Amino acid sequence: MTLILGLDPGLGTTGWGLVRAEGNRLSHVANGQLKTDASESLPKRLSHLASQLEAIIADHSPQAAAVEEVFVNKNPQSTLKLGQARGVALMIAARAGIEVGEYAPRLVKKAVVGTGSAEKVQVHAMIQHLLPGVEISGPDAADALAVAITHAHHLASARRLG
Amino acid sequence: MTLILGLDPGLGTTGWGLVRAEGNRLSHVANGQLKTDASESLPKRLSHLASQLEAIIADHSPQAAAVEEVFVNKNPQSTLKLGQARGVALMIAARAGIEVGEYAPRLVKKAVVGTGSAEKVQVHAMIQHLLPGVEISGPDAADALAVAITHAHHLASARRLG
Repeated sequence: MTLILGLDPGLGTTGWGLVRAEGNRLSHVANGQLKTDASESLPKRLSHLASQLEAIIADHSPQAAAVEEVFVNKNPQSTLKLGQARGVALMIAARAGIEVGEYAPRLVKKAVVGTGSAEKVQVHAMIQHLLPGVEISGPDAADALAVAITHAHHLASARRLG
Repeated sequence: MTLILGLDPGLGTTGWGLVRAEGNRLSHVANGQLKTDASESLPKRLSHLASQLEAIIADHSPQAAAVEEVFVNKNPQSTLKLGQARGVALMIAARAGIEVGEYAPRLVKKAVVGTGSAEKVQVHAMIQHLLPGVEISGPDAADALAVAITHAHHLASARRLG
């Protein structure tokens, strides 16, 4: 049994999702969206994000974590904001002794839906199918669950190959 | 007396510099460059950076911190890397209860040299002049000392105006 924490970091909203993998069987544990207050200073928002992530890790003790690789061909100011939140998220996982897998967005879509060009709506429908009974907290939580599922598939393949 | 920690965050090298401000008088306390090992994973490098910054803060107990605002019109991949390191640095300062001032690069040059279009070599010469006896550990440490000096000037102006 491996408990996997998927993360979709962002300064305003960070999606998270916990998936339990037992061999090829997946089940949903929890998911949510962490918010920071845009009226606070950037360092305080990052500190608040760190504390919220630490609380989730303390509550659930995941053995693995996963994030999407970042598209950097968008607004550079957005890339900087995203980078700052992502750095905090990766660091908090590393400090908790959790290895973090990184997956390209196409690979996540392929792992969840079967094709790298899947639309968001297809990804969400497949998450509902793969994790029966899940109530998805929002789009960022969905992305976090998708990357957690991808990591579970990766672990299962690695086991088959090993 | 205010002890100010200037930071020039980066994933590979983070410059830091501590400056003591007493009224308009400045003095150098310490400076250095923190390195992370490029052969390690990104989360581990960020975690190592966080621990090194925490050690400096624990050793010196600065009351204030300052960083440069980021130019984002360069390579987006570099912006992402920088953002991740910067997020960790800002978060560690905030967790230690230290307010972080952010200054535009032009403002830093103006504060240190007197003109916003100063060259790096002029900035370094002025740091030597303003902080007699300083031995600068490298270019990133110099940038960190420059932004600490800028913050000291800002505090002095705020006091005069207040």
